[in-house]
Amino acid sequence: MRDALVAQADGRVQSPLPGQLQFRSPPGDCHIKYGHVAGSPNFVIKIATGFYENPSRGLAASDGLVVVFDAATGTPRVLFQDEGWLTAWRTAAATAVAAQALAPVKITAIGVVGTGLQAELALEWLPLLLGERPAYVWGRSLPKARALAARASGAARPVAALEDIGELLARCNVVVTATPSAQPLFAADAVRAGTHLVAIGADSPGKQELPEALFARAGQVVVDDLAQCLDHGDTGLAVRAGVLDASRVVPLGRLLAAPGRPARAEAEVTIADLTGIAAEDIAIAGLFQERLCA
Amino acid sequence: MRDALVAQADGRVQSPLPGQLQFRSPPGDCHIKYGHVAGSPNFVIKIATGFYENPSRGLAASDGLVVVFDAATGTPRVLFQDEGWLTAWRTAAATAVAAQALAPVKITAIGVVGTGLQAELALEWLPLLLGERPAYVWGRSLPKARALAARASGAARPVAALEDIGELLARCNVVVTATPSAQPLFAADAVRAGTHLVAIGADSPGKQELPEALFARAGQVVVDDLAQCLDHGDTGLAVRAGVLDASRVVPLGRLLAAPGRPARAEAEVTIADLTGIAAEDIAIAGLFQERLCA
Repeated sequence: MRDALVAQADGRVQSPLPGQLQFRSPPGDCHIKYGHVAGSPNFVIKIATGFYENPSRGLAASDGLVVVFDAATGTPRVLFQDEGWLTAWRTAAATAVAAQALAPVKITAIGVVGTGLQAELALEWLPLLLGERPAYVWGRSLPKARALAARASGAARPVAALEDIGELLARCNVVVTATPSAQPLFAADAVRAGTHLVAIGADSPGKQELPEALFARAGQVVVDDLAQCLDHGDTGLAVRAGVLDASRVVPLGRLLAAPGRPARAEAEVTIADLTGIAAEDIAIAGLFQERLCA
Repeated sequence: MRDALVAQADGRVQSPLPGQLQFRSPPGDCHIKYGHVAGSPNFVIKIATGFYENPSRGLAASDGLVVVFDAATGTPRVLFQDEGWLTAWRTAAATAVAAQALAPVKITAIGVVGTGLQAELALEWLPLLLGERPAYVWGRSLPKARALAARASGAARPVAALEDIGELLARCNVVVTATPSAQPLFAADAVRAGTHLVAIGADSPGKQELPEALFARAGQVVVDDLAQCLDHGDTGLAVRAGVLDASRVVPLGRLLAAPGRPARAEAEVTIADLTGIAAEDIAIAGLFQERLCA
């Protein structure tokens, strides 16, 4: 995922704007992400669907599949009917990479906002790169947050649910937001100095997790893809609100490619805004193809 | 296919601009067409690849697959690894429908320009709607045209290859052009009065089959989709050359939905410009799903 983010920052990825279909009754959407990394033997097309009334029919809300094609002949090579798992895993991996990239030297605790699949994977995967830390979770539904905390807790990794998001922000200086929220989850001044936030929820227009004012406060803002984050990420909202200059935003891949640990003032607030990119889908599909189909 | 074209003309089809990837070495491309017809239980995503050096490796130049999804749940229902056949068939069906829509009352002969798969299917399928007629074929390669004529000929359906495209245009008043040409195949004045032309070759930017001046001569111009034909059909070239006013162009589906036979002056030249639309892919995938998977 690191290589994919670097390739994206280097302009080595051909990935047109995702295709999209919208459905009203029942409400749902379909996103098509596709692309090719220069020099890769494969290109990849990923189809992801979200139909939010599915759970009431006993079906998962998300579904989808990934097709890997031979980039020299156009022949379809592998189809993963993965029901969205490859996306979930590549997102979790990118989240962990983005969390590590600008994590403070001393991590007090990891905070996760949200109780869905990506929140759960963040609780599992961040420690792989940040080390085992105390972790806290908050969600609109306290019972769901408690259930998630119970599932994610281990001897080396205590996870507690909190009733108040302010308490989570007071205790944690690495915070992942992974919600489908349509408005800011907290006020800009609720974030403690020195916090690194990774926002992964706002993946389509109309969604928002971070208050615009937090971007004004932030010392560094990194994104997986600038065009996409301006189009439908929290970053775009801050730029359109006039509190963030787009020229200050840095591709995460550029940070990852630079030698050494990126400079970070102790009290600085930093933000990584991820909207999910085709390069990540290509990377994980290629990995699974290698491991499963070799 | 008639219903699909009518739905398109009525604005009942959600079909964003196709996605596209381009490859340089070896040269190739991938097109993604996708859409949903209002009220249909399915939506469809079609992936088509063209890699023009494949035949030298013993592979077909075109490949692809079609995925049918449940429009109420987003669940993938059927995948057709059809290697491009559904596209070939829906194109042939739309070609026959477009040929019939404005065919002259007295058809002298059917002319087909091109020797590829779509040319062959046009020779087979047009008689299903126009009746058995003498037919002529012309191609840049006379041996290929002769081989095609021999394959397509039957007792009720004599097909002859011609050495001169001018002779084909002199004998035929229903003419299909199905080539990958990048420049006009003939001069505007080579077309006989009263001819109906169906141009299906110019399906991407840089391709052209009909001379712009023919559009100035034409009494009626119909298209499968106006936006697409303006973007990369022969129609768009004529509009940009200033010889055709886009407001004169009529959606084929509107003609098909109107009661009775469309008015047509005996000496009028008419043009149907087809670039291929997602509504057609949805129609044929739905048909195959019904017949094969019920």
